[in-house]
Amino acid sequence: MPHTTPFGPTSTLNHASIGEFRTEAGAMMDEVTLGYHVFGAFRGELDGPNNVILIEHALTGSSDVADWWGELLGPGRALDTSRWCFICVNALGGCHGSTGPSSIASDGRAWGSRFPAVSIRDIVAAERRLLDKLGLEKVHAVIGGSMGGARALEWSLLYPEMMDAVCILAVSARASGWQIGIQCAQISAIERDINWHGGDYYDTDDYPLEGLCAARRIAHLTYRGEQEIDERFGSDANEGENPFGEFRDPTQRFAVNSYLEYQGIKLSERFDAGSYVALTEALNRHDIGRGRGGLNRALGRSTVPTMIIGVDTDILYPYHQQEHLSRNIGNFLGMAKIVSPVGHDAFLTETRQLDRIFRKFFKLSLPEPYSI
Amino acid sequence: MPHTTPFGPTSTLNHASIGEFRTEAGAMMDEVTLGYHVFGAFRGELDGPNNVILIEHALTGSSDVADWWGELLGPGRALDTSRWCFICVNALGGCHGSTGPSSIASDGRAWGSRFPAVSIRDIVAAERRLLDKLGLEKVHAVIGGSMGGARALEWSLLYPEMMDAVCILAVSARASGWQIGIQCAQISAIERDINWHGGDYYDTDDYPLEGLCAARRIAHLTYRGEQEIDERFGSDANEGENPFGEFRDPTQRFAVNSYLEYQGIKLSERFDAGSYVALTEALNRHDIGRGRGGLNRALGRSTVPTMIIGVDTDILYPYHQQEHLSRNIGNFLGMAKIVSPVGHDAFLTETRQLDRIFRKFFKLSLPEPYSI
Repeated sequence: MPHTTPFGPTSTLNHASIGEFRTEAGAMMDEVTLGYHVFGAFRGELDGPNNVILIEHALTGSSDVADWWGELLGPGRALDTSRWCFICVNALGGCHGSTGPSSIASDGRAWGSRFPAVSIRDIVAAERRLLDKLGLEKVHAVIGGSMGGARALEWSLLYPEMMDAVCILAVSARASGWQIGIQCAQISAIERDINWHGGDYYDTDDYPLEGLCAARRIAHLTYRGEQEIDERFGSDANEGENPFGEFRDPTQRFAVNSYLEYQGIKLSERFDAGSYVALTEALNRHDIGRGRGGLNRALGRSTVPTMIIGVDTDILYPYHQQEHLSRNIGNFLGMAKIVSPVGHDAFLTETRQLDRIFRKFFKLSLPEPYSI
Repeated sequence: MPHTTPFGPTSTLNHASIGEFRTEAGAMMDEVTLGYHVFGAFRGELDGPNNVILIEHALTGSSDVADWWGELLGPGRALDTSRWCFICVNALGGCHGSTGPSSIASDGRAWGSRFPAVSIRDIVAAERRLLDKLGLEKVHAVIGGSMGGARALEWSLLYPEMMDAVCILAVSARASGWQIGIQCAQISAIERDINWHGGDYYDTDDYPLEGLCAARRIAHLTYRGEQEIDERFGSDANEGENPFGEFRDPTQRFAVNSYLEYQGIKLSERFDAGSYVALTEALNRHDIGRGRGGLNRALGRSTVPTMIIGVDTDILYPYHQQEHLSRNIGNFLGMAKIVSPVGHDAFLTETRQLDRIFRKFFKLSLPEPYSI
């Protein structure tokens, strides 16, 4: 049932302007708007204890949490909308309500290549500005996985006074060399597309579909466990096609190749290539140690009770990275391992395990008896 | 010291024509030449016990074993040229002496897109034809890693009567779904290059350099362990460049990105893009179960004593794939694990461990007292 909250109606996309914005690297944007969703009624005080949980979406996610953690969100569910008021903000640089490369700038043209390089800290700083705008000075907790985990972690380091706890899934303290390498391969696949036009394809009839599909194909193989991919597709031919012919023929595909091409097409229907580049670049720049004396010093100084979750088969953010976070975080609340053949995406798909983890997080993060 | 052997001079590239060749898929080639190297003097009988060891190179390797296992090859070394006569054949489809897409066909033009899709079995069948041509009916053993391991495994299944033992490193019984996916991403990166011209760029002034570099960048990240890449490069900026500027700029790179671009350029100097596609396609088709009643039946029927080696951090051919081989192979000689942060490429770089492994293989594969 839709509510009205001090932040706008629930379960629908809201917008708010945060005005000018200067990035960490020094670029100036004259006008930034952020899109966001609210789920559940607000209770408590805007500047004191309340029931707000900030949820941070991943790279190609959106503020509509029901879209990607839908089975976990609702009355009585782990992300219990009868108890909590969830707010999720579309990332700066994204394409689901927030200013990004495809947005129209004040001169009436798309930002395109004029959209600056944003960091995870920029994305978080913009969110903070949105909460200010909404009059919200405090939340109970911040939760996020993958890029959302990087955002949640930066939240806890930038604005520790604003939260009681943070829950971080399937991410690391900084982009690893391997991650930067595979992410640059994706960016490069898009930039090589002749329809990319240096990031300024918005004023043309072109769209860098092939480049985005190529990027997604690479990305998807890092999102999924290799044993899961093999169990599903093995070396099967795609139905009705023969990839074993006399000559190589791109139209005669293995099943896995057809699946990966489909993932690219599907992504292109809901996601802008410019935003894909912008947010992938933000992930390249993810490094909580920057300007804070290095990774472990930054982690050690963290004061927010932090729960850390990893996936045993994650290729992109291997479990040892979450172990590193857990060993070094200043205020360690707990750790959990999702056991799954799915790989990185298990932070989205392993609903039963996530249910238990989130319930445990809320229990650990609130003293008994629950005050909210 | 160069020798003359019945197969030609040692330590130099030799060529031999094997005439017509029909591929597994049914394509006909009117004339095939293979390039090969010989290391060490021949002893024994051409059709009986002798000291020949067939070495199988990997995807971008060549028949010049001194180039890639150089530290292991020589008098007194594990690949002991004072004791064994090593023969290594450039793969059909390659570009180092054997007929491949860049070779000139009988009509005076490059094969290009007319070069058929070859399988690992085709590559092995062509080698067998070369040995026939050289009058060699028997070898002591076949050794190979990665694509060379796939070739060695197929050798032992196609022509078990020709060898006493086989040693297979860092490979699987068939291409996994994940491998096909990541390999198709590489092929697609080349095919998307406008200079590819459908595989017929040889008659033009173009070369699909960008595509080959993009493919190599992806491949290299599967050849190397993520912890090794991170230890070497982390999120460091490339010297003299600033990847943290106000705007994303492809000329301002992370160190890892510069390194990966360099790997691509380096490869393009020694390897043809058409051969890269042809041999990657051969790897896609690698499946010892095809036409043999499935993987485990094919393995179970194998009669050649087989030693199997894996690398603990291999992303491309994870260790569980070598465990699968070991559990199911019909005549199991032994198993060894290379422990290394390097990942897949450890089968080339971990010289000390490889030294012990090969010495053990020769010991196990020959009854005492050594008769050779």
